[in-house]
Amino acid sequence: MLNIRTDLALEAKEMCEDENKKIDGVKVEENLINGIKVTNVKITEDVGERIMGKPKGSYITIDIPEFTHYNGELRDELSRVLGKELKHIINSIVKIDKSMTAMVVGLGNWNITPDSLGPKVVSKLMITRHLKQLIPDKIDERIRPVCAISPGVLGLTGIETSEIISGIVGKIKPNIIICIDSLASRKVDRVNSTIQISDTGISPGSGVQNRRMELSEKALGVPVIALGVPTVVDAATMASDTIDLVLNEMIAKSKSGGEFYNILKSLDREEKRKLILEVLNPYSQNTMVTPKDVDIIIESIAKILSTGINIALQPELNAKEINAFLD
Amino acid sequence: MLNIRTDLALEAKEMCEDENKKIDGVKVEENLINGIKVTNVKITEDVGERIMGKPKGSYITIDIPEFTHYNGELRDELSRVLGKELKHIINSIVKIDKSMTAMVVGLGNWNITPDSLGPKVVSKLMITRHLKQLIPDKIDERIRPVCAISPGVLGLTGIETSEIISGIVGKIKPNIIICIDSLASRKVDRVNSTIQISDTGISPGSGVQNRRMELSEKALGVPVIALGVPTVVDAATMASDTIDLVLNEMIAKSKSGGEFYNILKSLDREEKRKLILEVLNPYSQNTMVTPKDVDIIIESIAKILSTGINIALQPELNAKEINAFLD
Amino acid sequence: MLNIRTDLALEAKEMCEDENKKIDGVKVEENLINGIKVTNVKITEDVGERIMGKPKGSYITIDIPEFTHYNGELRDELSRVLGKELKHIINSIVKIDKSMTAMVVGLGNWNITPDSLGPKVVSKLMITRHLKQLIPDKIDERIRPVCAISPGVLGLTGIETSEIISGIVGKIKPNIIICIDSLASRKVDRVNSTIQISDTGISPGSGVQNRRMELSEKALGVPVIALGVPTVVDAATMASDTIDLVLNEMIAKSKSGGEFYNILKSLDREEKRKLILEVLNPYSQNTMVTPKDVDIIIESIAKILSTGINIALQPELNAKEINAFLD
Amino acid sequence: MLNIRTDLALEAKEMCEDENKKIDGVKVEENLINGIKVTNVKITEDVGERIMGKPKGSYITIDIPEFTHYNGELRDELSRVLGKELKHIINSIVKIDKSMTAMVVGLGNWNITPDSLGPKVVSKLMITRHLKQLIPDKIDERIRPVCAISPGVLGLTGIETSEIISGIVGKIKPNIIICIDSLASRKVDRVNSTIQISDTGISPGSGVQNRRMELSEKALGVPVIALGVPTVVDAATMASDTIDLVLNEMIAKSKSGGEFYNILKSLDREEKRKLILEVLNPYSQNTMVTPKDVDIIIESIAKILSTGINIALQPELNAKEINAFLD
Repeated sequence: MLNIRTDLALEAKEMCEDENKKIDGVKVEENLINGIKVTNVKITEDVGERIMGKPKGSYITIDIPEFTHYNGELRDELSRVLGKELKHIINSIVKIDKSMTAMVVGLGNWNITPDSLGPKVVSKLMITRHLKQLIPDKIDERIRPVCAISPGVLGLTGIETSEIISGIVGKIKPNIIICIDSLASRKVDRVNSTIQISDTGISPGSGVQNRRMELSEKALGVPVIALGVPTVVDAATMASDTIDLVLNEMIAKSKSGGEFYNILKSLDREEKRKLILEVLNPYSQNTMVTPKDVDIIIESIAKILSTGINIALQPELNAKEINAFLD
Repeated sequence: MLNIRTDLALEAKEMCEDENKKIDGVKVEENLINGIKVTNVKITEDVGERIMGKPKGSYITIDIPEFTHYNGELRDELSRVLGKELKHIINSIVKIDKSMTAMVVGLGNWNITPDSLGPKVVSKLMITRHLKQLIPDKIDERIRPVCAISPGVLGLTGIETSEIISGIVGKIKPNIIICIDSLASRKVDRVNSTIQISDTGISPGSGVQNRRMELSEKALGVPVIALGVPTVVDAATMASDTIDLVLNEMIAKSKSGGEFYNILKSLDREEKRKLILEVLNPYSQNTMVTPKDVDIIIESIAKILSTGINIALQPELNAKEINAFLD
Repeated sequence: MLNIRTDLALEAKEMCEDENKKIDGVKVEENLINGIKVTNVKITEDVGERIMGKPKGSYITIDIPEFTHYNGELRDELSRVLGKELKHIINSIVKIDKSMTAMVVGLGNWNITPDSLGPKVVSKLMITRHLKQLIPDKIDERIRPVCAISPGVLGLTGIETSEIISGIVGKIKPNIIICIDSLASRKVDRVNSTIQISDTGISPGSGVQNRRMELSEKALGVPVIALGVPTVVDAATMASDTIDLVLNEMIAKSKSGGEFYNILKSLDREEKRKLILEVLNPYSQNTMVTPKDVDIIIESIAKILSTGINIALQPELNAKEINAFLD
Repeated sequence: MLNIRTDLALEAKEMCEDENKKIDGVKVEENLINGIKVTNVKITEDVGERIMGKPKGSYITIDIPEFTHYNGELRDELSRVLGKELKHIINSIVKIDKSMTAMVVGLGNWNITPDSLGPKVVSKLMITRHLKQLIPDKIDERIRPVCAISPGVLGLTGIETSEIISGIVGKIKPNIIICIDSLASRKVDRVNSTIQISDTGISPGSGVQNRRMELSEKALGVPVIALGVPTVVDAATMASDTIDLVLNEMIAKSKSGGEFYNILKSLDREEKRKLILEVLNPYSQNTMVTPKDVDIIIESIAKILSTGINIALQPELNAKEINAFLD
């Protein structure tokens, strides 16, 4: 079968839920903060882990309101909500104080626009660790040490990302790691419109190009927070969902037990796969669905995420002080 | 209804043809040149123009063989075939000699990768007109005068592209214009795998973003050759084609006149439109289907096209002399 | 002799002035606006034109305070001062009202960072002319029509910039033209720290690469305002000025009439030229002096200029409304 | 005093040499290979190390002939010479065979064009280590494992480059490391026209921005070959050299013991420093001298270096096979 998957816990939940019946071992909480919807999907027990296909932990989803990418004020508001949620989740793990070092990892391939979110976020962060070490007397003591790296992807370096990160982590021993990644979504309307924060790190098989790495507390010995935004839908996923939609529409209209059920039966998995290949052609598995103005939108999301992270990691500075440092 | 269209004469032909029955007023000729398939669709009469929805003229399609974008030698071969076809079509209109000036126009938006083909091609051309004017004694007399411009798109300039081009044409009076554009295809497997040359210029409504301009001999007073490559499929088109495919598959399996025909009947246009919107969501009309490595591929196509144009416009220079000029 | 020149009226004034003696036919006025120094050099008579080597007209210089490029608030303040001065100079020529169309021209080569200021400014402008024409009922009637183009440079297009601009001007007939250009300065400390506005247009020989075009009311039939920022010093100019500085230092220390005067005499023009060539080597005439972080600084200046122009051309909108349009 | 320094052993040699007198503990060998000048400066003894201010080892300098950056064939020839020299120096340390892993490190800041050489070279390398590990049966067994990383600079990451590299080296244990860096030269005519290869690694204080790291066998436990190209001259260095040139010219013309000697005496170090600051202004220490077309030239050098490295690290492949892998 074609690889049809989601990196989003919220989508996994929707796919697992059966007519509003709750999923065992999973708690869901919804809030509206300044008009922005924030959903917390908590996988609390083994059974939830099995059903959802994701490790136990918190998965917070922040909805990006429509038009945010074309409205500077909405963007700032969203950064503040993200900053608050992120600070909360970090403080539940370690305390952001003078002695803490945060390391931000920007995953993804800078040559492929929808996969370049991580490196773009890293380029806009407030980098301070070296200043705290080299000129501690000259910089504001309220500033917390932050460092960051964009390791590239396996095809660009020939080195597994987890090897690079664990090598650096071994040297600089951060207290917490925040990983940024571009994700794949199942639905076009979720693309570039959702931010997911989780305290579970990154599992193999996620990301725009099905990355192979695991970046988690288990693998690195340091707590890992993952920050992800779906930036593409696989074209195969979209074709598959379209086919399902047509079939469902028809089922809704057909009398049960009639001729239609036989046709439906005969259109099994293998047939569906053939139809998708016919739409996409055998050589185009590497095809994605993305907005035409993807460059502008990725830039906007990178700004939202970097500002949110700066707010979360520098709790004693205000927005003006952060900007003065960056500009 | 959603806008479902094709910029490719070859696709229009396939869509119009009914079980191998030829289209009136249209001649088709296929050739294999060094293993590269070249198809010439000639719309010769008014009836062909009406059926195909495209103006009378020659539409030459060159197939880009698989893996070309990852193989420098195949790329060079393709440039040579393109150069030959282009030279042939130019010579059928004007003679490429010392007194002729060619103007190349790179259409499209440089900020949107799949729409940036035109400007990218222009940046790789052998620009010589000013040298012929300013230092005629110092440059090789076999070099022909070529100039070029990338006018941008309406949203970037606030000026209709046809106003910009006709203004410049009025000043410099070229003998022939070659326009490069990124096109939209109906089929994913045609994306980035076909070059279309036509002697009819550019019609309104073509291009990745449905450009509004007409660039033709009628509009500009100078013969216009259009060079286009499909670089995207509208996501709406892909969803629509997927739905049709599912329906056709089912029709093929159903007995005629049964329950299925009633269902099929009830799934009319409006219903289909609703299904597509459901896949794409109302706010994502601006969605496209494109390969993940689109940046690399557009760069490769730009190299193929610019080399082909340089070969066609500088018939007295060999590849080495052209490269020496450019590098 | 080597080409040693300045595009800045303020530098020309300083070079022409002899010990605070005023230059005939030139009026100078200095103001401090919110801590930003604004100098207006007015060449009012033929004699001033001859001495200064620049056409009659107003040359307003706005000093960019130190650290502006690393401080968002200072940048906004500067944009406001620029917007006010620019609006004033435009209103002295035409009235910015509903019926007026402004055309902005971004001069320079986008491939050479310190020459890319013009195109970068154009990419950040509020482009509205097409909206006023196509959907007049749907956009805020307080918005004024603005269009813009970056024509490239002669080496990229093979077409004189003045041919491109006059061709387009003939078609769209703007009421006023604003040209943006990167300039050359004589002094390193003026680089990226001065904005010059003048109502005289652009003369041949100005710009980073000694452009050949004239863009003026005389040449185009439309009033032309020139906006320029020095972004480089020619390395030859810097070497020449260093030599002069050493000589002056020595003259100040030597008794007049002594051995030194003979040495000084023998170090004439030709000798000086030889020394400069020795520093620069014969093949490096194309060498410039520029800050290491030139990419970041050009981006910052482009933001200042584009915001200032948006303020000047949209007098009925406030900063928030302009940002909402752009973001 | 201002920081006046050189990263080039050849320049150090010229500065230390006194009227063709050889330097103790330093051997110099010149060769002409296919018209390309190759100089090997060997620092063999402690005394040479002290005089030259550089560690013992081989420093090979390859001259880049004029116009190379605008001539594809010359570029290829240069890559072959570089490949040969590099292979020779690698083979004197380790043997390039199946069991050897090479790691290439691209030093420098990708946001500052003349400092971006290292990252640009890395982006053009033949990366194979992961293929040898993941699909050993599917790739040509003549291909040697190569990996690469561009760690960024301290200001971008907050992590010392040596920490990043030693962390990764500890994980992947390469047999040899090749570091690429942009260097500073004392002379404008050496900029972008010299390649230096040395077997001594990288010392602190070298590079365009005086990097702080040491990357050497001593620091990393793996032999390190350094590949550098001077891409800038500090403006301060240029001003200083200009002043010296003027003074020397005058000394040559003055009678010894006369008035001039007194002037010369009074123009001591502090005075010279003041003159340089006057040319550059106090805030512009961060100023460099570079060609106007620096973007194009850095691209050309990156191509030369990456091709040379690919040739050296893949001795069993020919140019065509390397290109087929890369394109």
